[in-house]
Amino acid sequence: MTCRFAEFARPLLASALAVGLILTSGTHVFAQTDPLPSWNEGAAKQAIVKFVEVTTTQGSPKFVPPAERIATFDQDGTLWVEHPMYSQIVYCFERVPAVVKANPELANVEPFKTVMSGNREAISRLTTNDLVKILAATLTGMSVEDFRAEAKKWLDTARDPRWKRPYTELTYAPMQEELKYLRDNGYRTFIVTGGGQDFVRMYADEVYGIPPEQVVGTASGTKYGYTKSGKPVLTKEPKLLLNDNNAGKVEGIYWMIGRRPYAAFGNSTGDRQMLEYTKAGTGERLAMLVLHDDAQREYAYGPALGLPASRVGTLTQALYDQAKRDGWIVISMKSDWKRIFSFEP
Amino acid sequence: MTCRFAEFARPLLASALAVGLILTSGTHVFAQTDPLPSWNEGAAKQAIVKFVEVTTTQGSPKFVPPAERIATFDQDGTLWVEHPMYSQIVYCFERVPAVVKANPELANVEPFKTVMSGNREAISRLTTNDLVKILAATLTGMSVEDFRAEAKKWLDTARDPRWKRPYTELTYAPMQEELKYLRDNGYRTFIVTGGGQDFVRMYADEVYGIPPEQVVGTASGTKYGYTKSGKPVLTKEPKLLLNDNNAGKVEGIYWMIGRRPYAAFGNSTGDRQMLEYTKAGTGERLAMLVLHDDAQREYAYGPALGLPASRVGTLTQALYDQAKRDGWIVISMKSDWKRIFSFEP
Repeated sequence: MTCRFAEFARPLLASALAVGLILTSGTHVFAQTDPLPSWNEGAAKQAIVKFVEVTTTQGSPKFVPPAERIATFDQDGTLWVEHPMYSQIVYCFERVPAVVKANPELANVEPFKTVMSGNREAISRLTTNDLVKILAATLTGMSVEDFRAEAKKWLDTARDPRWKRPYTELTYAPMQEELKYLRDNGYRTFIVTGGGQDFVRMYADEVYGIPPEQVVGTASGTKYGYTKSGKPVLTKEPKLLLNDNNAGKVEGIYWMIGRRPYAAFGNSTGDRQMLEYTKAGTGERLAMLVLHDDAQREYAYGPALGLPASRVGTLTQALYDQAKRDGWIVISMKSDWKRIFSFEP
Repeated sequence: MTCRFAEFARPLLASALAVGLILTSGTHVFAQTDPLPSWNEGAAKQAIVKFVEVTTTQGSPKFVPPAERIATFDQDGTLWVEHPMYSQIVYCFERVPAVVKANPELANVEPFKTVMSGNREAISRLTTNDLVKILAATLTGMSVEDFRAEAKKWLDTARDPRWKRPYTELTYAPMQEELKYLRDNGYRTFIVTGGGQDFVRMYADEVYGIPPEQVVGTASGTKYGYTKSGKPVLTKEPKLLLNDNNAGKVEGIYWMIGRRPYAAFGNSTGDRQMLEYTKAGTGERLAMLVLHDDAQREYAYGPALGLPASRVGTLTQALYDQAKRDGWIVISMKSDWKRIFSFEP
């Protein structure tokens, strides 16, 4: 997990446009018969509709029995905004003061000292190893109940600096429609994320309609023990069980679901193996890659656009080429999505 | 994982009674309105019915929303016969000749040499460490597809020596009824087993109506790679991801399900933490322990009966006492079950 530290406290983009978007939210009129109204007509939308028809129509040679209808979705950058920093990383940084308050000896220990200094220049130079220490200190060492209470408090109050909205509102309306469309056709939708499994489970049900048992993520171990009064308690440990990125996503799918997906959605090299593995199955399979090419309505980043490598969701030229070669569908946010967020008109 | 090697090739119990049971199978008449016809009236049956009524009746102060209705079942000794040896261990031993044939250098390497010798006395002295080597050699190093093909072949042809039936028929009829009764009332049923997760997934759907994604078990890692023709392939690795026994069962539940069960079922010390954790939740919770006390119709074993410790499913006196103290329900196979198997009259 990496991030662009320099953008941690990125100045708010309080443009007149953004204000306008907020004031007119919720007034969009959906076409009655179109399950994907936020999608423009085009190859991406057609591919989705064709996939569902071919795999769910009785008598179709590529019919898939309901029990096997599995669709897996990366989260950050595929279902919601990941730029400039994964929201869970923001959470970890914002938790540092509380951790230092509870453990004052950390105030003079790196990397906590640097984070507490607020020196953006120094923070931007923290290494991945520093970040691992921050994740361990802020995500482990407490009971799973205490973790949930802390995370919930943050999710309820934290706001994305650009849109001034809870992070949980920054989901992509077209992908929400796709989730619903697949479920309405008997697919079960899973999140397969590099993010922390129990962090994502906090909101996946409310935000996406995806229950905890359908969230596969990077997982740390827990330790079973007892409170002073003898009550069983699970404590989060700084022990990595599954790094649910790259090949780890396929391993996580095998482990947690035990079936090969019929459809998979991603946006970066971390999703490559999941898309490959999905597409390599027999029958009709759908693999889609979200391309962040809309600098105005969201963000544009990644080498596939000729832009510098980003610290989030890298889509390399090689991955883009593989998508074109292997029949994955590239979704252009700019061209394929009529709107990005449900709070837009 | 341990087993009683000396009983590996236990002589068949071809009693006239057993033959009689087979010939008259499938003729049992179920009472129309009783969801648990294989259970005798008594405290155990009453506890199940009360639990379901209290947690699923709208307006009940202990009503549980459908999404949270989770019930977890140990498999070996709880849902089917585990004595004298876990069926997966039998599978591993019976796979050794094929492994040695494919890797002739193993013929002179322990513990394979001993297993190939057929010397029961020597086999009975193999250590747990030897067993780990046998499991690694027979369960890993192949693609997940090859593993499934091998396991399926064995499951289709192997027979339990006492009942001369496929292992998959040796499930307890009362527990099958309980699974169905819970599901009919909106509960989702999960297996949480010390056995190999992907082995149990091979038959759990057909045998118990439990799909792969609802099987939590001891899991080894997989490695993502490519065949010579460039097709993605997952290979089973001898790397332990989760030992789904004892405290590992609670960790597995947290990881794979992410919710605390409302009902849990086990039969040995390996299930203690799962039952404790379940029972420690708020509201109405059900914890049940199957006691193997029926030497005639099945087996009687375990210290809680004053019998020597068994190599499978140990139920200690301490666990039995904890069950009585903490309000778990002990199921006596002898007294509480009208019949053991569905092939009985």
